[in-house]
Amino acid sequence: METIGVSSTSRTQFIDVTAQVRGAVRKSGVRSGVCMLFVPHTTAAITINENADPDVTSDILMELDRVIPLVDGYAHVEGNSAAHVKSSVVGCQMNVFVEKGELVLGTWQGIYFCEFDGPRSRKLLVKVMSGGGADS
Amino acid sequence: METIGVSSTSRTQFIDVTAQVRGAVRKSGVRSGVCMLFVPHTTAAITINENADPDVTSDILMELDRVIPLVDGYAHVEGNSAAHVKSSVVGCQMNVFVEKGELVLGTWQGIYFCEFDGPRSRKLLVKVMSGGGADS
Amino acid sequence: METIGVSSTSRTQFIDVTAQVRGAVRKSGVRSGVCMLFVPHTTAAITINENADPDVTSDILMELDRVIPLVDGYAHVEGNSAAHVKSSVVGCQMNVFVEKGELVLGTWQGIYFCEFDGPRSRKLLVKVMSGGGADS
Repeated sequence: METIGVSSTSRTQFIDVTAQVRGAVRKSGVRSGVCMLFVPHTTAAITINENADPDVTSDILMELDRVIPLVDGYAHVEGNSAAHVKSSVVGCQMNVFVEKGELVLGTWQGIYFCEFDGPRSRKLLVKVMSGGGADS
Repeated sequence: METIGVSSTSRTQFIDVTAQVRGAVRKSGVRSGVCMLFVPHTTAAITINENADPDVTSDILMELDRVIPLVDGYAHVEGNSAAHVKSSVVGCQMNVFVEKGELVLGTWQGIYFCEFDGPRSRKLLVKVMSGGGADS
Repeated sequence: METIGVSSTSRTQFIDVTAQVRGAVRKSGVRSGVCMLFVPHTTAAITINENADPDVTSDILMELDRVIPLVDGYAHVEGNSAAHVKSSVVGCQMNVFVEKGELVLGTWQGIYFCEFDGPRSRKLLVKVMSGGGADS
């Protein structure tokens, strides 16, 4: 298991971690298998979305803020319940296939660490498992 | 890794891919393990939901459209930001268990490819890994 | 594959199943790998969120009810379409890493079975697969 450090600089932010995840896959030496990602926090998440136009990730953050407002009659005294809701809606874990020693991603896909209660220092856990392929 | 082709015919649509995924599991020969599904697109997703009354999937599409409207002040010029948001909310990957060479699904569960920006030709990637069982 | 029984007592409820999942991991004997969870129902889900202040999970349930209302012009005659939508939004499956024979969870993370159409008797399926670690 590898740990990737992530530093967010805003309250809500999508941070592209594709390069770091790619590095963990290469380091593992796995040729065919699956790269598993896990966020050990309850006000953050992991997702895959467009890596070309940065308006896409800012639109996603804006829309999540509109649907799940920061202030909305929550009981939790820390004031970050919206971040907890977003974490469960987007999800704290994800799998990406590995073939020929590399991540299998669509042309427009990047992997994003989702900060919903920053700025903070965060961790992303990575595990690469072998299997499921001709050369596994 | 197998690739299942999916053709959508509407802007938003749930397409039942259970039979195709079942076929990929049988082809793999894995008796006990996990079937992993991955959508290599950023305006589509994969989910499991009711396979009996088609009103359920149309209600889900309607409600997602109400919560995340097609037009909502987005910056992305392609005009499909709502589809990107839905992709991150529903998610582009999923695991289903395999036992005795077959998918383990609840009575009412079907696997659906979720089109949020169609109609288009799409792909669903499938990987079946062995493990975690008495006969694995 | 293990089956954990879950009994919900309300229409919507988060039930902490961390202890039962931990038990399944120990029973498996896997030292390094992944614990996979799957909910074989279409009006329930599985998530990870804060285990300290119970206001967090009640805020999440409240906010999901506000965003996806129980009554909202759905066509499905059973009247539980909101529960189906929540199931696809939160998701019916999840992976948690296993290292040194134990679940790898952040300090504030608990695993919750999400009931969206209770009260009912439910099942949570668990599979622990070995791999991805130095001692796997």
